[in-house]
Amino acid sequence: MSTDICYCTATELTGLLRQRRLSAREVVEAHLDRIERTNPAVNAVVTLVAERALEEAHAADERLAAGVDVGPLHGLPIAHKDTHATADVRTTFGSPLYADNIADQDELVVERLRTAGAITIGKTNVPEFAAGSHTFNSLFGTTANPYDPSKSAGGSSGGAAAALACGMHPVADGSDMGGSLRNPASFCNVVGFRPSPGRVPSWPTQAAWTTMGVQGPMARTVEDAALTLSVLAGPDNRSPIALEEPGARFADSLDRDLTGLRVAFSTDLGGTVPVDPAVSTALEPAAKHLAELGCTVERACPDFSGAEEVFRTLRAWEFDLGLGSLRDHHGDRLKASLVDNIDTGRLLRGTDIARAEQLHTELFHRMRVFFQQYDILLLPVSQVAPFDLELEYPRSVAGVPCESYLDWMRSCYFVSATGCPALSVPAGFTPEGLPIGLQIVGPHRGDFTVLQVGHAFEQATKLTNRHPDLGA
Amino acid sequence: MSTDICYCTATELTGLLRQRRLSAREVVEAHLDRIERTNPAVNAVVTLVAERALEEAHAADERLAAGVDVGPLHGLPIAHKDTHATADVRTTFGSPLYADNIADQDELVVERLRTAGAITIGKTNVPEFAAGSHTFNSLFGTTANPYDPSKSAGGSSGGAAAALACGMHPVADGSDMGGSLRNPASFCNVVGFRPSPGRVPSWPTQAAWTTMGVQGPMARTVEDAALTLSVLAGPDNRSPIALEEPGARFADSLDRDLTGLRVAFSTDLGGTVPVDPAVSTALEPAAKHLAELGCTVERACPDFSGAEEVFRTLRAWEFDLGLGSLRDHHGDRLKASLVDNIDTGRLLRGTDIARAEQLHTELFHRMRVFFQQYDILLLPVSQVAPFDLELEYPRSVAGVPCESYLDWMRSCYFVSATGCPALSVPAGFTPEGLPIGLQIVGPHRGDFTVLQVGHAFEQATKLTNRHPDLGA
Repeated sequence: MSTDICYCTATELTGLLRQRRLSAREVVEAHLDRIERTNPAVNAVVTLVAERALEEAHAADERLAAGVDVGPLHGLPIAHKDTHATADVRTTFGSPLYADNIADQDELVVERLRTAGAITIGKTNVPEFAAGSHTFNSLFGTTANPYDPSKSAGGSSGGAAAALACGMHPVADGSDMGGSLRNPASFCNVVGFRPSPGRVPSWPTQAAWTTMGVQGPMARTVEDAALTLSVLAGPDNRSPIALEEPGARFADSLDRDLTGLRVAFSTDLGGTVPVDPAVSTALEPAAKHLAELGCTVERACPDFSGAEEVFRTLRAWEFDLGLGSLRDHHGDRLKASLVDNIDTGRLLRGTDIARAEQLHTELFHRMRVFFQQYDILLLPVSQVAPFDLELEYPRSVAGVPCESYLDWMRSCYFVSATGCPALSVPAGFTPEGLPIGLQIVGPHRGDFTVLQVGHAFEQATKLTNRHPDLGA
Repeated sequence: MSTDICYCTATELTGLLRQRRLSAREVVEAHLDRIERTNPAVNAVVTLVAERALEEAHAADERLAAGVDVGPLHGLPIAHKDTHATADVRTTFGSPLYADNIADQDELVVERLRTAGAITIGKTNVPEFAAGSHTFNSLFGTTANPYDPSKSAGGSSGGAAAALACGMHPVADGSDMGGSLRNPASFCNVVGFRPSPGRVPSWPTQAAWTTMGVQGPMARTVEDAALTLSVLAGPDNRSPIALEEPGARFADSLDRDLTGLRVAFSTDLGGTVPVDPAVSTALEPAAKHLAELGCTVERACPDFSGAEEVFRTLRAWEFDLGLGSLRDHHGDRLKASLVDNIDTGRLLRGTDIARAEQLHTELFHRMRVFFQQYDILLLPVSQVAPFDLELEYPRSVAGVPCESYLDWMRSCYFVSATGCPALSVPAGFTPEGLPIGLQIVGPHRGDFTVLQVGHAFEQATKLTNRHPDLGA
């Protein structure tokens, strides 16, 4: 029964909780039990607050019994990404420098989830300061892939993705600059959604007007990701770029007839980046699925010229902005690749940032014109299948050597540079049984359309029901 | 009669036009006549397309007669700021380098005004590339103040402000980085509104995500500025930062009972910038007016620390971004102060931009907290009264020497650095008869509140009815 609870969708669970067919305490207990049995194999949850969670669950049950109007996530356990500040619960950023850090208050995404009734059960593992898409750090070690514990779970929301796949909690929060909500979802057969900038207002943040890094939801189904987004999204006056559309929009039904939808499909970004044949092979049936749903599927890809420079420049600049002071005072306690990134940022001139912003603008308009011709764009999420846990990053992609830990993430970060919303949804498995995700990209602020297409695709493939075998 | 037409409000005129008590042709003819009689004294309109305007007016009359659903600005003549691109009509940016420049298409603000039924009659004068708040350039010369032609009309939307004051057209478009919609409005006894970033989507632009420079409306009354904003505002997928709220919101009645409104009032930004006593004296009665309207008025000012660095850094950076290439190839044909600004921008490091963005964020939050205590903030628009036309900029403010042409604009550009919307509304005259404006600043995205307060203030003072005596 407790495993059944743990593989219920959030949508089902909230229904059962509201009808009091399950108590929040039962739900939290089941998930704590699940964590105890599965977490040792994957190392996804790195901080656990079981006692506090049980107390909160008890209080939630009492509120419901007393007729209090509970929120849309009432009674759902959640572990927050360990880069998201939580009051009273350790937030380490995956860095020994913050091993004992306790924030004064919840950050906005955590506050919203908790206000909606979610119950904090702990924190999920991240790479040091969320840098990179493989989840390892010197504080907690590496997060393993639930489908093959010798492989990476992806990152930076790798702990969240692995935890979801293992049934440790039904929904999660994450963040994404270069693919951190999408790559781990792809690696762990779950759903990760990078929303439009401003869709999920971020606070606190050191540079509130920047748009490359966003926060968003993860879940095992698109519907659950949308439910979570309905809580995370909507304006807040602590973010100057917050979109005005209320989050409740995302609680609407995702059902949509896709007949006539114009779909552009490319398994290799038009040949501009190397892609592991295992990935393109696993994605190939997606074209057929969409065609069967009534879509017009064409092989096409926008021109991503400039995306490389836009992303690398603005990322390095933001790393120096956010972590430069830490690098000055504790550089010896940061991982080498992070120090390199910060130092790259430090050497940038204003004119480099200016050029990146001009290319950023050109790319935005190229995507805008592309989306006059197509309603949706399908791409690989990651250029590789889940790789060896022991590697810092894959040595090569389809025979092309990787020069840095970012090289294999271009299929994700090119999309970040466009500002478009993008979903990672399960699309298939390699012959070895490793998950491969499909990236569904929509036009500027077309978040809802992306979720609708993802939902239809997911119903066609039923892959989200294929859970890992952890012998638990 | 034709002068009467020219001092009708836009709101009145559109009513008369719709009821066919006036034809668009009559309205355009009256304004062309007014331009002929008053423009020589002030040099506000620098390009005139009389014939085209009359043809368009005729066509507009025919459309209305045929029962076509005409737009909210049907039949209103308008001259566009000469930095706003217009198809088929010269756009010079006030630079000899663009003396013969004709754009391929209207830019978005022009397109919206024309789609709403406004009739292009020409272009209004600007400083070279809109740099600075005094309108002079080597191509067309200087725009004079309608209330005293030996004084500056302000800028950079100086041509627009002078034209409005003279009755040459009822509404105008402008832009504002450091005060370009507000300073000229203050100098010419008209209304200029700097909206929230994204309120009026800008296109084309080289760096579409930047927020310091915005476009917005000018008019002789707050209601007319709001009417114009209702056409200019609202989402457009050519701007990635466009706010989603439809522009029609601003066509709602501005009437509001201000009883209990908490007003912060400072004639000298809390003593942080020098302000000419002529300005503070003219503003003093504003406190009384607001109190009589039922507001609680307190002497208070937010802490603008960092605003100087935010504005100067980001402005120089954007100048290099936008004009750096022109400076490289035609530096000898740009005015010296502009070359200086571009060169300052060119020397900036990425870390300087980063620091500015951090201060920008801190300032945003300080204003947010300030606006928990107050609903609205009243400040001077300009630190000086309209100054000698012959000067490039005032030599000193209240005895404090100016080191650059930006120094006397701090009361405006500190507000730009906050991201808050701000209105310039007529507030009084110096003993010499020179206009002085009041700056009404609202919280983040509180554009409508600002306009409501401005509307009530304007009704209390009736200063917008005091037109210049041009002997015309």
